[in-house]
Amino acid sequence: MLIAIPLFDRFTALDAVGPYEVLSRLPGAEVVFCGTDARPYRTETKALAITADRMLADIDRCDVLVVPGGYGTRESVHDDVLVGWIGRMHHTTTWTTSVCTGSLLLGAAGLLDGLEATTHWAYYEELAKYGARPTSRRVVEEGKIVTAAGVSAGIDMALTLAARIAGDEVAKAIQLGIEYDPQPPFDAGAPDKANPETLSLLRQLVAQER
Amino acid sequence: MLIAIPLFDRFTALDAVGPYEVLSRLPGAEVVFCGTDARPYRTETKALAITADRMLADIDRCDVLVVPGGYGTRESVHDDVLVGWIGRMHHTTTWTTSVCTGSLLLGAAGLLDGLEATTHWAYYEELAKYGARPTSRRVVEEGKIVTAAGVSAGIDMALTLAARIAGDEVAKAIQLGIEYDPQPPFDAGAPDKANPETLSLLRQLVAQER
Repeated sequence: MLIAIPLFDRFTALDAVGPYEVLSRLPGAEVVFCGTDARPYRTETKALAITADRMLADIDRCDVLVVPGGYGTRESVHDDVLVGWIGRMHHTTTWTTSVCTGSLLLGAAGLLDGLEATTHWAYYEELAKYGARPTSRRVVEEGKIVTAAGVSAGIDMALTLAARIAGDEVAKAIQLGIEYDPQPPFDAGAPDKANPETLSLLRQLVAQER
Repeated sequence: MLIAIPLFDRFTALDAVGPYEVLSRLPGAEVVFCGTDARPYRTETKALAITADRMLADIDRCDVLVVPGGYGTRESVHDDVLVGWIGRMHHTTTWTTSVCTGSLLLGAAGLLDGLEATTHWAYYEELAKYGARPTSRRVVEEGKIVTAAGVSAGIDMALTLAARIAGDEVAKAIQLGIEYDPQPPFDAGAPDKANPETLSLLRQLVAQER
């Protein structure tokens, strides 16, 4: 079972690594990180680089496609090599998935037209431009296309997918293996739980990041 | 604020990337991935490589130390260069932290003697060999030393730490930014929630991984 995770400049690391950590533990899983070029790709902070071991051009099929998001999607949705490859891969997959603004790349490849889908909560309008019907559900399944909400939602998406692929018991064993028994110190992880001060602070932090 | 994350062969990616994704968003944060050598380090699956941009020998202080775990700790607890560096860094830090079996490395550096600490649930006995008193709490604070439970617990640890460093409101804004509103499809992420079948399946998956 080949699981392909394409990287691009200024991707968000957890979008890719959350699903990697779950799906790589499936029996028979082979994960490949790939990119337009075979080289390290850096996150938006420049502090973290993950190596793309293979070129997109050298991968002509995969069973599971996991497309991460990140600030870099602003540019990568216009990258014909990446977007064209995602469209071609989709014809070969059993599951086509995205995390966070990775769904904008699925949208750019024409895969979400008329479908319910999700993305990071700040990008619903952007997602709608591709004909998708944005929803705030954390994991959205539409046939073989599964989209996840922002960043950390990729872990929940991947466990859902692990259950579809290998059964509930295997998914539970993987969850136990990564001790995913979340206990965040605050209940502030969704916009409807945030107060105006939190939103204002987030805007300041984001301005610093970009 | 310099945040150092040391890598070693066969580390677990999410142990490092969960805290990275939270702490890199703190105002003034500078994250550096480092290793005995400046090179890419691979996880136990070999499928994922993160680059160590700097050598340990070139880093003589940091404000926050985040030590990830992984199967590779079985060897790295005997790596005098890494363990010695962790011990020296601890004298310079405001916070010394670990995720999963990263606490075994803190233990090997002599930092946990007589302290409460945690690790992946399958490694409590191993942790006790270093004089620590293992607990099953997800995030354990002992002065400036903060240890987290297995793999995904690094996200909860880092949010706790973000609040200590920059205040609750900043931590909540970061949580909202990474949309950390966990909704796992199962409640199976801790050993006391697992049935014997799940534990047996996990043992099979782990045998495949190692």
